[in-house]
This record gives sequence, structure tokens and C-alpha cells, in this order.
Amino acid sequence: MQEKQRTEIATLGEFGLIRHLTEGIELKNKSTLYGVGDDAAVLSYPDTEVLVTTDLLMEGVHFDLTYVPLKHLGYKAAMVNISDIYAMNGTPRQITVSLALSKRFSIEDMDEFYAGLKLACAEHHVDIVGGDTTSSLTGLAISITCIGDAPKDKIVYRNGAKETDLICVSGDLGAAYMGLQLLEREKKVFMGQKEVNPDFSGKEYLLERQLKPEARGDIIKKLAGQGIKPTAMMDISDGLSSELIHICTQSHVGCRIYEERIPLDYQTAVMAEELNMNVTTCALNGGEDYELLFTVPLADNEKISQMEGIRIVGYITKPELGMALITRDGQEFELKAQGWNPLRES
Amino acid sequence: MQEKQRTEIATLGEFGLIRHLTEGIELKNKSTLYGVGDDAAVLSYPDTEVLVTTDLLMEGVHFDLTYVPLKHLGYKAAMVNISDIYAMNGTPRQITVSLALSKRFSIEDMDEFYAGLKLACAEHHVDIVGGDTTSSLTGLAISITCIGDAPKDKIVYRNGAKETDLICVSGDLGAAYMGLQLLEREKKVFMGQKEVNPDFSGKEYLLERQLKPEARGDIIKKLAGQGIKPTAMMDISDGLSSELIHICTQSHVGCRIYEERIPLDYQTAVMAEELNMNVTTCALNGGEDYELLFTVPLADNEKISQMEGIRIVGYITKPELGMALITRDGQEFELKAQGWNPLRES
Repeated sequence: MQEKQRTEIATLGEFGLIRHLTEGIELKNKSTLYGVGDDAAVLSYPDTEVLVTTDLLMEGVHFDLTYVPLKHLGYKAAMVNISDIYAMNGTPRQITVSLALSKRFSIEDMDEFYAGLKLACAEHHVDIVGGDTTSSLTGLAISITCIGDAPKDKIVYRNGAKETDLICVSGDLGAAYMGLQLLEREKKVFMGQKEVNPDFSGKEYLLERQLKPEARGDIIKKLAGQGIKPTAMMDISDGLSSELIHICTQSHVGCRIYEERIPLDYQTAVMAEELNMNVTTCALNGGEDYELLFTVPLADNEKISQMEGIRIVGYITKPELGMALITRDGQEFELKAQGWNPLRES
Repeated sequence: MQEKQRTEIATLGEFGLIRHLTEGIELKNKSTLYGVGDDAAVLSYPDTEVLVTTDLLMEGVHFDLTYVPLKHLGYKAAMVNISDIYAMNGTPRQITVSLALSKRFSIEDMDEFYAGLKLACAEHHVDIVGGDTTSSLTGLAISITCIGDAPKDKIVYRNGAKETDLICVSGDLGAAYMGLQLLEREKKVFMGQKEVNPDFSGKEYLLERQLKPEARGDIIKKLAGQGIKPTAMMDISDGLSSELIHICTQSHVGCRIYEERIPLDYQTAVMAEELNMNVTTCALNGGEDYELLFTVPLADNEKISQMEGIRIVGYITKPELGMALITRDGQEFELKAQGWNPLRES
């Protein structure tokens, strides 16, 4: 294997590194008046509301660099924030990126990270408008803030779900979690035995879902194209169960979802079987799929049913009926937030 | 000493902790439509431009919890971002706060941090509108994004300084750095010998400048009140020298500043002498004072000279004259960016 070039970040310093990483960035959004290079970025939103979301990702907690390439990490770090703007039914416009790096990282590493970041931003027409690059004693910390916009009457909150609304999910669930299991398994194999080639064949989709999630701006566009405005919406980062509980709690409603309706990919099912895990549990609690979970009025049933890539998984009920999953054999189980929670007692 | 209560964060979990920390937060700004609790905050800026700035602070690099109380840390973390909005001649309106915590931190610790954060926000009428709370393997990471606004024609960039403009500084410089030296010295004493009482008497101002910096919104108001719009402006976070170089480089100009004009507090001078350091060097390169550095047209000389808390330290020149400090004995020294740079080779 060819040795990769390694240039110490200290040769550039903080400002040199920021300049190096952000040079050549073209600003594409009308709302971006001024980007990197001053005390603050300057944006303009005269006609729409401004949406702001932020995330902090820590090495060893949110990502493991032994199997996550830095380019994918940059891509994913941007994408998860972009996804939050779509989840408000908005359009992502700008991001700021703050990084804290230990000495282990080189300029080439940061180039890789930024390559992924820029790719994700290019796909969603998002401008990189600022940030902060500093050092850390151990590991990598990434903080991204994404700014977007939406006309006031188009914004979709979590608290608008109404009784009889249909509960919809885009794409399929559980694959990102299965991808993580797969990477963790291969890491263990790799740790125990050198010269091993991880066997990922037939499982590419799971890896892609874990390493290169896609924010569902396409679904937002499709819904708008059909004249459908969801009554409540979130992106699924912590698992369907956890997110649905958020929507129901904030909307003061209950829900029923059907196990048989939960969208699954074939590879997810195969992998769950291989790992002796219940695939429904994985889909309910896995997280990191970054699909959209939303509710629509019953009147949109026909339109929604005909839209590709969207599945109706259940409906909203009165609050006193609670939140439950109906299994294939007709049993009712209360939904629990067993999704990924970094601060939970383990 | 009474044992402080300690409640593990795991007892609340991520969402519980966010709810606990943000409950009772009242939104005070007209521009804040929706704060904590959804995928993104919703803001409204129909008549002004939006300013966005962000910072990432890492334990062991940016702060040392052996001598920085968490309440002060929260206060300072908010203040340094608020300061960046003032440095654009804007008004801070909202912040988002992301924290990554190791198991060492308790709910009571976070209450302390948030108490400081809320105090800083209350003083500057800033709303806490969102954030992220997660775990870290080691130490504390804090990422704050501050959003503010300014009418387009009032925004002051770094790149507008013109030949003959006056260079102005608010407050005094070097005290925050002296405060840091003092704390570091007492830490060493404390580490070597228990039961020692740090001797801070007569040095309270230095500690306050280090532990409780104040963003200079008052200066921004005063300037506006006098009808003065700076041609370029920054806040002094890395040291006067480094910031002035930023302004001159981005404005394509040179400068002359006078050693005898640099504003110093008496305590700063005493402490520098005690530590056998050159006080001018401390003021030029110390950083963390969060005072404002700005340039104004020569025509504003009279008005500026009469304003309390502002000192004219020099003037802007043609670029070919370079950037220099004139010492008390009339010698010229080229300004160098020796301010704090976390990524510089040490």
C-alpha cells in the first residue's frame, strides 16, 4: 500500500487551515451574503422564516474512525443536519462547521473530511459559510449548524398530528443499524486477526446506509408537488419508536402502527437473521436511517398511497389509547423509546 | 465543606436533560418564533440581515476546570459568541448550545453551567433556542452558535478600513491574559501544596476579566448613538496584534499603533511586573479580552476622543508601509500575530 502523504496541521495554524479548507468555496444561495472570513456570516431571509439546527459529534461516541473513512464522516456530519431542516419541511441553505482536532490528524485528513462535507453540501445546494477549527487533547469533535428556510405557513412541527391522521415513513428502516452491526463485527474480526478481508459482499446497501445516509429532500419536494403538507414531521435519527413517541407526546395523541407495514430492505432482514436479531426491533429502535416520519390527514390517503418510496405504517389515535405496535399475529405492544441514547444508563 | 449533591445524568437521559436544562426558558425576542423542542428552531428576520457565528470549546484546550467554575464557563461560552455578533455591529438574538459530557459531570454541574449561560443571555436579551446534549469519552466539549441581526447598511466587516482611518480600542487590554497567568500560577501552588489559600487580593479585576468577560454591546450602542459607523471592526479574542493584522490584511492597508496609547489597567501592569513580563507584549498578544477593535474615519476624531471607554491607538496607512508598533522611544516594530493559536506548532 502506498504511504499517504502527511502534512502536520501546525504548519498552517488555525487561520491557515481554515483558509486552506474553505478556499474556492463558491456561494450559491441568494440568501448567503457573506460566508467564511469575518466574525460572523451574513445571511438574508426577508421573505421566509429561518430554521436553525445544530449537532455535536464526538469521536468514540458517534463515530469510530477505525472503520469510518473521514470523507464519509464529513458527508454524514453535514447530511444529518441537512436532514433536520427537511424535517421541518424547509430547504437547507447554509452550514457552519467547527472542528476540534488532536495531533493525530493531518491536513490530508481534513481535506478528506472536507471533501465529504462539500459533496453533501453540493448535492443539497448548501453553502459552507463559517466555522471554527481548533485543537483537542483527544480525538475529533465536530459541530455543525445548518440554517435553512421555509415560508411560515409551510413549516411542519412535531406537535401537529391529529386523530385519524395517517403515519407515514419514507424509504426503509433498520438498514443503517444493520450496517453498524456489520462494521462492528468486522472490526472485531480485524482486531483479532490481521490480513483478514472483511466480507461485505451482498451487504453493500447496509454499509451505504450507515456510512452515507441521504437526507430526504426528494420526499419533501414530492409532497409539495402533490400539494400535501404533513401535519407533523421528524427525521428518524434515533429510531422509529423514539421519534413516534416524540410526535405523539408533543401532539397529545396516541398511535397504532403495524409491524407488517414497517418498510424493510431484504438485506436488512437477511442480516438480522444472520445476527439472530428481531428485524422489527432493529427497524423500530435502530436509528440513523435519516428517513422522514410524518403524519398526513386521512384525506390524503389516496395521494400518499400512490407515491413511491412512502409507506403508511399506521394511524394517529386519541391520546387515551396510548402508543402501540400491532404485531403480525395481532398482539398490541406499547411503544418504548429504546433508540440510541448516548446519555442513557447502560 | 458541605458535600454537593450529585445526580447522575443517566437518570434523565438526553431528552430529559435537555428538558430539565431548558424548562422555564422564556423567549424574549420578536425574531424567535420557536425555540427548543423540534428538529430546528424557527426564527424570523424579515427586515434585517441575519448574522451567524459559531465556536467550539474543548476542555483542556480552551478551559481548565480545576480553576474555572462551571457557572463562569457557561457565562463565558455564551459571551464570546455574543461578542462576535457585536463585532459585526449587530444585535445578538439567539443561541444554540451543544454539549458533550463525560460521566464525570452531574446534573448539578450542568445546572451550574446553564445558570452562567442564562445569566449572559439575560444580560444581552438573547434567547436560548436549541441545542444538543450528548456524551463524550473524555472531558467537556461546548459548541455555541449565536444568531443576531443588523440592517444591511449597518453591518461592519473586517475589510473596510481606509487610509487615515483612526484605530480604536474599547476598554483595556492584557488583563484577561494576566488573569490566566495568575490562575495558572495558583494552580501550580495548589498542586504542590494542599491547604494553601490562593492570594488573589488586589488582583480581582484580572480574575474577573479572565473568568467573566463582558461583550461590549454598550460600545456598539454608544457608537450608534453618536452616529458613528466603524469602517472595520473585530472583537479582540486572540490579541490586538493578531486582530489588527486581520483587519489590515483584509482591508489591504497598513497601520501604525503607538505603544503609549495602548489602554492598560493598573493591575495588569503590576501583575506583568510581578511576572517579569513586558506588559505591552501581554496587551498585544494576550487575547481573551473581548474588547472591540475598530477603525473610524478621521472626521470622527473629535466625537471618538470624547467618548469614555474608547482609546485611539493609531491610524491606518497605505499598505506599502506595513503594520507596525511605535514604541515609547520611537522605534518601529513590525506587528506579528503571536496571539493564542491552538493549532500552532509549540
